[in-house]
Amino acid sequence: MSDLDALIADLVIANRILGREGVCDAFGHISVRHPDRPDRFLLSCSRSPEFVQADDIMVFEPDGSPVDARGRQPYLERFIHCAIFEARPDVQSIVHNHAPGVIPYSVTQTPLRPIQHTFARIGADIPVWDIHDRFGDTNMLVSDVAQGRDLAACLADNVVVLMRGHGCTVTAPSIAEAVLTSIYLQVNAQLQMDAMRLGDVTYLTPGEIEASSQINQPKSGSVRAWEYLKARTNQEA
Amino acid sequence: MSDLDALIADLVIANRILGREGVCDAFGHISVRHPDRPDRFLLSCSRSPEFVQADDIMVFEPDGSPVDARGRQPYLERFIHCAIFEARPDVQSIVHNHAPGVIPYSVTQTPLRPIQHTFARIGADIPVWDIHDRFGDTNMLVSDVAQGRDLAACLADNVVVLMRGHGCTVTAPSIAEAVLTSIYLQVNAQLQMDAMRLGDVTYLTPGEIEASSQINQPKSGSVRAWEYLKARTNQEA
Amino acid sequence: MSDLDALIADLVIANRILGREGVCDAFGHISVRHPDRPDRFLLSCSRSPEFVQADDIMVFEPDGSPVDARGRQPYLERFIHCAIFEARPDVQSIVHNHAPGVIPYSVTQTPLRPIQHTFARIGADIPVWDIHDRFGDTNMLVSDVAQGRDLAACLADNVVVLMRGHGCTVTAPSIAEAVLTSIYLQVNAQLQMDAMRLGDVTYLTPGEIEASSQINQPKSGSVRAWEYLKARTNQEA
Amino acid sequence: MSDLDALIADLVIANRILGREGVCDAFGHISVRHPDRPDRFLLSCSRSPEFVQADDIMVFEPDGSPVDARGRQPYLERFIHCAIFEARPDVQSIVHNHAPGVIPYSVTQTPLRPIQHTFARIGADIPVWDIHDRFGDTNMLVSDVAQGRDLAACLADNVVVLMRGHGCTVTAPSIAEAVLTSIYLQVNAQLQMDAMRLGDVTYLTPGEIEASSQINQPKSGSVRAWEYLKARTNQEA
Repeated sequence: MSDLDALIADLVIANRILGREGVCDAFGHISVRHPDRPDRFLLSCSRSPEFVQADDIMVFEPDGSPVDARGRQPYLERFIHCAIFEARPDVQSIVHNHAPGVIPYSVTQTPLRPIQHTFARIGADIPVWDIHDRFGDTNMLVSDVAQGRDLAACLADNVVVLMRGHGCTVTAPSIAEAVLTSIYLQVNAQLQMDAMRLGDVTYLTPGEIEASSQINQPKSGSVRAWEYLKARTNQEA
Repeated sequence: MSDLDALIADLVIANRILGREGVCDAFGHISVRHPDRPDRFLLSCSRSPEFVQADDIMVFEPDGSPVDARGRQPYLERFIHCAIFEARPDVQSIVHNHAPGVIPYSVTQTPLRPIQHTFARIGADIPVWDIHDRFGDTNMLVSDVAQGRDLAACLADNVVVLMRGHGCTVTAPSIAEAVLTSIYLQVNAQLQMDAMRLGDVTYLTPGEIEASSQINQPKSGSVRAWEYLKARTNQEA
Repeated sequence: MSDLDALIADLVIANRILGREGVCDAFGHISVRHPDRPDRFLLSCSRSPEFVQADDIMVFEPDGSPVDARGRQPYLERFIHCAIFEARPDVQSIVHNHAPGVIPYSVTQTPLRPIQHTFARIGADIPVWDIHDRFGDTNMLVSDVAQGRDLAACLADNVVVLMRGHGCTVTAPSIAEAVLTSIYLQVNAQLQMDAMRLGDVTYLTPGEIEASSQINQPKSGSVRAWEYLKARTNQEA
Repeated sequence: MSDLDALIADLVIANRILGREGVCDAFGHISVRHPDRPDRFLLSCSRSPEFVQADDIMVFEPDGSPVDARGRQPYLERFIHCAIFEARPDVQSIVHNHAPGVIPYSVTQTPLRPIQHTFARIGADIPVWDIHDRFGDTNMLVSDVAQGRDLAACLADNVVVLMRGHGCTVTAPSIAEAVLTSIYLQVNAQLQMDAMRLGDVTYLTPGEIEASSQINQPKSGSVRAWEYLKARTNQEA
């Protein structure tokens, strides 16, 4: 299998995991930078992540136009990926999703912050982007490059950006970490809400976040987590 | 397959989706206007939605009497459908359900309002109908045309009406949208409750609700959502 | 099939439903009065409800001694059944369970009350029995007839009694209604908690509870609910 | 089957149960003292509990070094087990996990306490260990014997110790009880949170905790619970 085929295979698995774990339902998508053409990126055609197959993976130009569409319909919101890959050369993979647990933090003033070491990679600061600030009343979708760039500016150097009344976008140096971070973001959101109900919360310190993020590397627990999630896609939800 | 047979097939799938997604358990039902006789409507006989089959679909007159019962027992609450199809020519499909997440909003003064764009079609205003106001102590069921018309008057031009201590009724221009709106209503209800726990909530603006509702059309994400939900009915819950 | 065999078959199905629906885990049990000897009752040997089979069903005397044990180990808490069948000739079936949603109401002063018509049969008043009041520090189990009779006295003429730090006991005129009431009790408990979070709750009126309870009869929705739950025991949880 | 092989078989089942019941996901582990060499202990190699098999079980020296690694990679946090087996001769089995329901109690001042008799074995006092107190900013993992001993000192004579921003560690006189206590800890955590929402909570008295813990013995309900959980590992989650 070529490097590209292997990457596509991983992207397909990533899509299935996001569906299986409840991060995506019919909506949401995950992309990865093209290994040979870092200005381009790979992303499924418009399909529910749980049902994506290798033939659905399309290649996109930096402006969001497909390289070889062959009749396949792209996701409307591919401009999220265009703009972040452009602004952040360190990012190799991006997930956009509407994970239910995360949405309440997008519509309130409560900052989402890591409370447990496994979740540290979501980062110390998670900004909230409100499309209304610059674009007024819209259908809330990131429908062009200008909106995508505004989102990317709000993301800045952080790992995650929430999107008011919409969902979130997660960045990572690899497909596996983009998937894991998306899952952990959702779990942290739910547990933080529970913890806040019990009283004042002790969050991870900046030093703990930094140290804990290091261990979520390909050589450590991330491999075990990826294998675990992959195995679960063969079980019914 | 004739248009009518195709519509019946969709209605059967809609029933299964409502069961699979936890909107209906043993109770609840979905109807669609008859394509050739818009005064009539199609509705299953009295059966749990998850187990409805094509032979269970009956045709009803505007007054709720069956056209050709063939021994099949109708749902007691078919008058919900009679009265709304009568009052609202724009409505093509109606779901009545007891989705758990929605019930708390039916017994408190907290308005249910869309917090995320996918859920926008539930509408800006969701009235609560209390059968006790006009009919006093009852078994809470909509058991005749008078009660159905009172419910329809409370629904007015809105998409959804909650029913105090009972459940809700959802209207739509198509079967698929009736199903999707029922599912989104339940998810919005749960997330709104979580968001209110975190602090003051920024709801979608009227303009955002209007613009976001447009995209839930047959040509857009609704198709993907319907295909997704249909595929899931073949998986165990 | 004899009447007794049919009743045993229903009792086995009832056990599986209680396991499938999360009312019982490894613990909890359901009994039914013997059709020919109303002083006796039928109850499984000590086994997790989800795995009970016809051969596990034992017959017990009013004092809790087995009629024909054949080496089968009875449940320790069979005295719950002895005492309630003795005190309440109207009761035909009894479920004892630790359904998670119900336990919080057993350890606080918040009364559990029906908020939706399907749940009306749990009754307007649900007393809480505290074994500590008369028996001091115990292992919390109803281990003899005296404790069972104290529980039955607290139950009085109600349908359900909660047991502090333990669970609940549910009574009914039939196996199907005992199962349905146990499930609805748990769902009502969860929804009431959510509703209380949203604000002041409008509960069913006494008249509505009375009228709604009538419809939970063998000729009405209860049959559909029983068939629904039975069909679900053939699906994975 | 030798005693050792039987113990290994039980340890494998315990791993699967912990995965099936949501106590462990990709992370967490369970150990048991070696039956012939009580200074040593058995623990899987680094693998998600749900997928552990007999060949994965390794033997460890008191200092955490493997007896016969055969290329298998040990868990990084095996020092939790080393230190507790050293400090607590009465402990035969240890579970370390990140069960979601428990984490909120690790980051707030709300003590986790048993509210129902089945959960009594979690103990009257559950200390919270904060790795930051003695080791400052770390990656939160128990990575050496010194950290393990500090954790064991905080555990003292209790059954469970929570770990701030990390998870918990559970001790027991047998594999089955370690598994059951881990599951009950998680359920108690969730129900206690719900109960606190309803009002002031009546917890089990010290005498009730003592008496209820006695019944969780191999001759009583624990056997039924273990058989129940074992049977469930053959069902899809």
